[in-house]
Amino acid sequence: MNATNDMSAITIAIDAMGGDNGPAVVVEGVAYAMKRGFGGNVLLVGDRSVLTPLVSAQAQMDRVKIEHADSVVEMTDKPMQILRRGHSTSMWCAIEKVKSGEANAVVSCGNTGVLMAVAKMQLKMIEGVDRPAVTALWPTQRGRTVVLDVGANVEADENQLVQFAIMGEAFFRALTGVKKPTVGLLNVGAEDLKGHELIRTAARVLREADSDMAFTGFVEGNDISGGAVDVVVTDGFTGNIALKSAEGAARLVGGWVKETLTGTINAKLGALLMTPGLRKLKDRIDPSSVNGGVFLGINGIVVKSHGGSDARGVASAIQMAADLAHAPYHDQVAKTVAAVMERSNALGRAREAETDLTIAAQ
Amino acid sequence: MNATNDMSAITIAIDAMGGDNGPAVVVEGVAYAMKRGFGGNVLLVGDRSVLTPLVSAQAQMDRVKIEHADSVVEMTDKPMQILRRGHSTSMWCAIEKVKSGEANAVVSCGNTGVLMAVAKMQLKMIEGVDRPAVTALWPTQRGRTVVLDVGANVEADENQLVQFAIMGEAFFRALTGVKKPTVGLLNVGAEDLKGHELIRTAARVLREADSDMAFTGFVEGNDISGGAVDVVVTDGFTGNIALKSAEGAARLVGGWVKETLTGTINAKLGALLMTPGLRKLKDRIDPSSVNGGVFLGINGIVVKSHGGSDARGVASAIQMAADLAHAPYHDQVAKTVAAVMERSNALGRAREAETDLTIAAQ
Repeated sequence: MNATNDMSAITIAIDAMGGDNGPAVVVEGVAYAMKRGFGGNVLLVGDRSVLTPLVSAQAQMDRVKIEHADSVVEMTDKPMQILRRGHSTSMWCAIEKVKSGEANAVVSCGNTGVLMAVAKMQLKMIEGVDRPAVTALWPTQRGRTVVLDVGANVEADENQLVQFAIMGEAFFRALTGVKKPTVGLLNVGAEDLKGHELIRTAARVLREADSDMAFTGFVEGNDISGGAVDVVVTDGFTGNIALKSAEGAARLVGGWVKETLTGTINAKLGALLMTPGLRKLKDRIDPSSVNGGVFLGINGIVVKSHGGSDARGVASAIQMAADLAHAPYHDQVAKTVAAVMERSNALGRAREAETDLTIAAQ
Repeated sequence: MNATNDMSAITIAIDAMGGDNGPAVVVEGVAYAMKRGFGGNVLLVGDRSVLTPLVSAQAQMDRVKIEHADSVVEMTDKPMQILRRGHSTSMWCAIEKVKSGEANAVVSCGNTGVLMAVAKMQLKMIEGVDRPAVTALWPTQRGRTVVLDVGANVEADENQLVQFAIMGEAFFRALTGVKKPTVGLLNVGAEDLKGHELIRTAARVLREADSDMAFTGFVEGNDISGGAVDVVVTDGFTGNIALKSAEGAARLVGGWVKETLTGTINAKLGALLMTPGLRKLKDRIDPSSVNGGVFLGINGIVVKSHGGSDARGVASAIQMAADLAHAPYHDQVAKTVAAVMERSNALGRAREAETDLTIAAQ
């Protein structure tokens, strides 16, 4: 699969049967993306008898093709079951379209664990990358920040954190066009002495071995929403908890705001006066506007749309998949990972040799 | 130090010189607490020549006494320096008042690391507790949730997590009077199979060895603000990042709300109509309203007020210290920790014996 500069040559395969809201919302999402000017093609993978009437009911669907698949991955299915006996599911077939080159990227609202396993099995990992990472696009005071990993790996060693940093940087560049995104490692304090040993080691490798990266050192939890850096790197356990804690807090404050706006007759009148602003506020708090977690590290673009996404969320995920397919993300990651790991190993060997000399001199 | 039922017999020692905002704000905080009906006594520890005029300038300070201390712990001081040569600092002297029994609890806005070290050194740990934990009071949709540890220990093993759960439960009970607080372990998924091995082990011990605790299993990041449980247990690294990520998100949404309220003339008029509601909203988002991190596990009540607290934040911390001094928190923790650890070890021995039998039978 190669990056291309012409959106009309981009095809996104969509697992149309996954997700809590069913295929109707997925098809609505495709229609919404088309209406908003999405310039690519869509392969809707799933039960033809279900999808055909849904597609016919929408306008502007001339760049949408249906590919039949017999069965569906359920939310309760285990990865092993699908790897063995799930080759006729819409998810498997949609990913296969990327493998065969018929599609440039795949989008699914389905079972995350199965999606990850099937994507790894069919598309393989980028050379030099040990494990995939899931990204979140986090709204901030300055725009958007990419946070990774937010759930693929409960633990990550120092090399994996370094790989996440390289993938996250290339991903942010592909998504935004920013040439030198800033990168920070999530920690409990900005000082060099704080945090786990492995985070400090990862910081040292990024500082010494990747001279091209705008690595700023450690960032803290509040720096994410503050927009301190473009890319925040952490392990999947910490990233998932940071993301969900922040979502919970945003929802809590959102609820308080709603109470304030509807608490009294005067407040309701006041709310009426600020209707356009409130609509924008609601849009900003709405998670659909930043929907789409990308599985970085896999040799192909795989976007996981939230299981409960509405049409707008599905459209965001489709657009993100297309933007990534459009940029030379994969080549950059593979090259940078190889170069940094080599320099890091060389530095490690030099350090060992130095220690040996010190010991020999004693 | 014993718990008492009469607030007038409670004395809070305050390190009056620490904090980013200096002694003036601390004294204002004491005055604010008195105005709000705080029924206890205060020992203000610090430079008498600085504190005397500040106290004289406030009303209702008849239950406030100044205790002179020569020097101050700076924010840049290292714990070791103060443990060796900082015995004349206001922080050291304030903690000494708890040790000697002259005060029931101590409050400080000063250097957290030094406060922890000096408190441990002077007051010692509760028997059976390995390490202290820092609490956060987290506002939720149902009221308040205690989260611990939010910063004392970057790592925590399964026994320490169990101890944190016991301390957090007793703490919540002391603070609120709720007899059976619900307790959850912070994890990346609610299912038993997810997360780190050590979190799963801690869950098993709490389920099997502490039959009195209302332990509900795993909770996720969004469950904290959702108010799913009264006490959320995690290691200091994860807790600190969850707390700061949530604070950052709340601040972000707060900023968006402010933009909405001032964006247009109409919006400003609307905001005027909802003034009382907006004041309440501001209070709710304001971190001062829930200020005060308690160092649990230490043999004495130590409350860390945020370094940048305003008078209201200092008053919250004083009230929290008094509420804790008022309840039989310490006795409960010591008894429960001992009992649970004993039962957990017995269960561990039983399990080993079973394994030995299985092996012998093979």
